[in-house]
Formats: sequence, C-alpha cells, structure tokens
Amino acid sequence: MNKELFQKLSIKDADEKELELALNEIVNAIQKPDEAAAMGMEKRLNEKIKPTRSLGVLEDIAIQVAAIQATPYPKIKGKAVLLMAGDHGVVKEGVSAAPQEVTVQLFYSYLNGGGGINILSNHAGAEVISTDIGMAGPLNPPELMKNRIKNGTDNIGQGPAMTRKEALQAMLTGAKIASDAIGSGYNLLATGEVGIGNTTPSAAIISVFTGCSVEEVAGSGTGLKDDALAHKQSIIKKAIEINKPNPNDPIDVLTKVGGLEIAAIVGAILQASAQNVPTILDGVISSAAALVASKLNPLTIEYMITSHCSEEKGELVALGEMGLEPRLFFNMRLGEGTGASLMFPIVEAAIKVADEMATFENSGVSTGEFKTK
Amino acid sequence: MNKELFQKLSIKDADEKELELALNEIVNAIQKPDEAAAMGMEKRLNEKIKPTRSLGVLEDIAIQVAAIQATPYPKIKGKAVLLMAGDHGVVKEGVSAAPQEVTVQLFYSYLNGGGGINILSNHAGAEVISTDIGMAGPLNPPELMKNRIKNGTDNIGQGPAMTRKEALQAMLTGAKIASDAIGSGYNLLATGEVGIGNTTPSAAIISVFTGCSVEEVAGSGTGLKDDALAHKQSIIKKAIEINKPNPNDPIDVLTKVGGLEIAAIVGAILQASAQNVPTILDGVISSAAALVASKLNPLTIEYMITSHCSEEKGELVALGEMGLEPRLFFNMRLGEGTGASLMFPIVEAAIKVADEMATFENSGVSTGEFKTK
Repeated sequence: MNKELFQKLSIKDADEKELELALNEIVNAIQKPDEAAAMGMEKRLNEKIKPTRSLGVLEDIAIQVAAIQATPYPKIKGKAVLLMAGDHGVVKEGVSAAPQEVTVQLFYSYLNGGGGINILSNHAGAEVISTDIGMAGPLNPPELMKNRIKNGTDNIGQGPAMTRKEALQAMLTGAKIASDAIGSGYNLLATGEVGIGNTTPSAAIISVFTGCSVEEVAGSGTGLKDDALAHKQSIIKKAIEINKPNPNDPIDVLTKVGGLEIAAIVGAILQASAQNVPTILDGVISSAAALVASKLNPLTIEYMITSHCSEEKGELVALGEMGLEPRLFFNMRLGEGTGASLMFPIVEAAIKVADEMATFENSGVSTGEFKTK
Repeated sequence: MNKELFQKLSIKDADEKELELALNEIVNAIQKPDEAAAMGMEKRLNEKIKPTRSLGVLEDIAIQVAAIQATPYPKIKGKAVLLMAGDHGVVKEGVSAAPQEVTVQLFYSYLNGGGGINILSNHAGAEVISTDIGMAGPLNPPELMKNRIKNGTDNIGQGPAMTRKEALQAMLTGAKIASDAIGSGYNLLATGEVGIGNTTPSAAIISVFTGCSVEEVAGSGTGLKDDALAHKQSIIKKAIEINKPNPNDPIDVLTKVGGLEIAAIVGAILQASAQNVPTILDGVISSAAALVASKLNPLTIEYMITSHCSEEKGELVALGEMGLEPRLFFNMRLGEGTGASLMFPIVEAAIKVADEMATFENSGVSTGEFKTK
C-alpha cells in the first residue's frame, strides 16, 4: 500500500490537501504491534538457561521487535541510519556556537564517509542514507538537492519556520526515504540529523507539547556558554509567543517552530511504523521528532527503540512524555545518529539470545526456583 | 617479568609466604597509565569534525585505553571474557533461589557454547575462557578441574570461606589465567563468573569496605522473594559479625567472606593492570572483586572500564567507592560477563573514532566556535 502511495504522489506538485491526505494515510496505517508474537518471544526467552527476565533490556527489545515484525522469530536483515539535513533561519539570532555553513560541510563529510556517524555505522554494519531536506547553501552536484524543500527554514524568532505545505512536504519526503530504505531490505532504522541551530526548534517543540519551561528543555547545543544559553532560551520563548503553535495540531507545531529535517524524521518514524519496522531514536532532535509522531498517532511509540541519554536535557523530557527511557549514559551530544548507531549491535544481540542460547530442556540445567522468579 | 613469575611459581605447591610475595610482586608492578599518551589521544580526538568532547564516553574510553597502552594509537588485538566458576558453602543457609548443582550445569553450557555469555561474546567477536576455580561438584573429564583450589568455599555463615593460603592460590590462579590470555594476544579483557550464591559474599565484601549496611548492598540474586531476601541479609550480617574481616587487609576480607571465583577475578584484574591491559567490569560480583583489587592498589581503578548497572544494587555502591559509574542501564542480572560483553563493540568504536573520523584539516569543515567549546 505505502509503496503505491509514493508512486502516485508527487510531493513537489501535490497541493496541500493532497499532501495532508497522504500523510493521514500513513498515520492511519500504523497498527498495534502483534501481542501474540510478543508472547511467543517471551516464551522462547523464558526457556533459556537464565533466571526469568535476567537479560533485562535485551529481552525487552527482543519482545518488542517480535511484536513489531509480528513473529516470535524476528530477523534483522539490514540496518540503516536515515540522516536528514536542514538549516535554520533562527541562527541569525545567534543561537548556535557554530556557523551555518558547517551544516553543508558536515553533509559532504557524510557522503565522503568521514563523519562520526559513518565510522560508528560502519562499525555496526549499518548504512548511512544522507538526505538534504533543506540546507541553506548550494550543493554540488545539484542532484544532491533533489529532496530539498527550501533553503533552510525561516527565522522562528520572527515568524513561522515554514508553511504548512512545506512541513507536509518535508514529512512525506522523510516517509518516502524510509519507504525506499525498507524497500531496499533495511528493516532496522535509526534516525540521525545535521543542522546547525536545530536544538533550538527541538526545545521549542518539546516545550510546546509537554508544557515544560524552555529552561527545562533547552541546553547548550554544540557548545554555548552561559550568557549565550540564556539568549538562546529567550529566543525560544519569543518563537513560541509570537507563533502560537497549537499543541493539538502537531503539524502546526512543526510548521511554526519546527525544522525541515525534524519534519522529515517525523515522517520517517511514521512510515517505518506503518511498515512494521522499528526505529532507533538518537538524541534531542530525534526525540522532539518522535514526540511529534507520537502526537499524530500514539501507537508509533511502540515502534521506537531508545538509545542514549543526550547531554541535551530536552531529550529526557521528550522521552518521558512518551513513557520511554534512554539506555546508554554516554554524555554524547554530537547528533548525526551517533548515539542511535550504538544500539544496532544491542538489538542484534537481543535477537541472537533468542535464536542461539541453550534452553533448560536441551542443556539439562536444573530450573529449580531459578526459572520461575 | 610476569610470565617469569608464573614459570617459577607452582601455585599448588608454594607455601603461603611464597604466594603472598608473588601476589605483592603483581600488585607492585601496576603503574600509573601514561599521561602523555592520554594527552596525545585527546589531541587526536579534538581534531575530529565534532564539538570538543561531544562523543562523551567514547572519547573517555579512547583516552583511557591510550593511557593504558601507553600510545596515542592504541589497538585492540583480541578480546576475551575470563569466566571464573566457584561454589559457595553459604548456600546451605538458603541464600539462593537456585540449587548448587546449577553452577556445574551452567559451566558445561559455557564449554558447549550455549550460555548467554557465549552468544553475546560470539556476537562481539570475543573469546570466552572458562575456568573452574572451585566448584563443588565433580567435572568430567577431570582435567577441567586442574585449576580448582577447593570444592566450593566453606559456609561463611559459620566461619571463614577459606584459608588465607587458598585465597592467595585463587587470586594467583586468576592472575595466571589473565597472563596466559594476554600471552595469547588478548589485550581487552572482561570479567565474568558463575557461582550459585555468589551475590551473598559479594554483598558482604562491599559492605565491609564501604561501611554501607547489608540492606543497602544485598539484592535478590537469581530471584529471591522478599522474606528470603531478608533472610539472606541476616546471613550476610552474621557472616561479617562472626568472621570479623579486616577492611585494612583485603586478602583477609576475601579469605573470610569472599569466594574462590571472586578471588580469581581480583587476581585477573591486578594482573591485567600490571600488564597494561584494560578490564571491562561486569556486575556486582565483578565490582566486589574490583573493589578488593582497588584496595590492594588504587592505581588498578584506572585500568577498569565499567559496563552495565546491574539490578543488584551493591554494584553501584562498589563502583561509587572507586569513583566509577556504570554506562549501560539494561536491568540485567545474569552475570557470566554478559553485561561486560556489551561494552566490547563500544571500546572498539571508541578507537575507530580516533583512527577513522575525518579532521577539521582534511575535511574543510569550519571550526568556528564549534571546536573550542
């Protein structure tokens, strides 16, 4: 069904109503993961030579992936990081320590294989699929810009980030990229992003949906000092005040205080969920996008696998709003999907425990009270 | 030097004084890791295209391993889990949900490749080196028992776990196993153990060294219910009261309220440190052993890499006493080295970041304030 959606939809040519209908089609295609498969996996794990549930999160993940794939015998066939790139007009307000041209420079480094995410994804046997959703500067060859919606968002300190149509285009582009990746055989995805300034809209989104103060959700990004952090927080407050995003309309929030790469991640998470593929979340930007997705359809939370606890404090707030917790406490704050990529081997390990570990029956280990805590 | 130590020492035949001298030789061989190499690694990492220190724990580990290997260009040549097996006389007091024969049964599963640690180590490309230091039941073929010091400890609820000579023998056996592994080319080790009942002596050790109450450090092990946990805690208190272990003499603590596999892990950690090899700690039993090692020589703390936060609450206390923190929050409580094994790919990823990631200079990415937080 979803492949057909993208065959018949021209994201660039469709009007706003057509785009909204297409997005709704994805949102409504998300089903509750299969409980019988989850129970089947739990039964398999309980037969292994260990105290019940003693492998903790590894068992949680094996059960979750079984439910998502709707089989007690899930398989990871291919792994990919969907890295979305976008720029932010709000950098004009001085909210970032790094200059805007760094977004494009880093984007080239991902294409050349030298970025942090490339190293960590290679290590995990995962592909990096990098997409320009809306960077500000030109790319060469121009073909690299084929998915670009606009040359960076507008300054949210002065007005909306983009039009509703552009937000829908960015979401559907992200969905299409996820659909293409799944079509190519990747069935474990991770979110990644690059975009100088993007902790600012992320904090705005998280504040709008959770009601937490800007101070509670906005951190120092690539490395702001205290005064600059206070300035950044004042800009986020102003962006929320002047744009008045409606938390009951998640697309309105993305439109007014979001980002193009954030919208693309929202779309990718929704699409993966609709196609029964789990998505590993990275840091605060991914978590802000995940939060938007969850407000469009709460079932999508069940398709998310958390990774690290970012140094950006908004992440914990966003995850908490969805009832999720991070697992890796690594003090990371690079983005790109680097934290998420560290979970690839963990997810594979979880499945291998189910597939390869000996059982009480085939090993002759006594169960005693050992098994039935 | 250390290879010669084990060539001239017969652990089984030496008298207590000779064993104590041999152990001191290892303890005194531990040097402070190389600060210049650490600085060299930090410089390499700061040249990478990322905000300074934004890869957090990955950078911490790369710097730590550089210091340990005394080069800014450390290499991981081989990885192994040293899995030590021992039994505990205190199980007669009903401190464990699982019967004692499970220790031997699980030990065979490790030899057959079906244990949890085998699956996770294979996944990480690591070897599992399993050693019977002192299980209670017989093994077949008897050759498997060649390193056994005694058939399980004595009941610490009634007297000391072992003699001081036996504690030294177990420590030196662990040291020899580490030395042999390092001699075979493994330069990243992890600790693992199996031993029904061994959270009981671990809690006793941690309580003795930290002054924390037994309630603060003793958890439910393989799965005790509340009443049984209270009973276990009362036995641990009694063991400390009647044995009066001297916290200023770590070997006395091991002798009186320790375990044979715990002593072997102490020896392995000390030996690895003396040979400039880092050791990844597993859960509460490993952490109790690490604490003993740190009391013999605090420099050994700098050779330890933490992994997960066990469900057994004593682990956090033991790590905290050494100024260490866990990194993976996975709610695991299996032991065997399963938590530690999940850190193997993380350590390798840390080194790869230093070796493979692009630099500001070779990529043309602007540093701006981006680099110099």
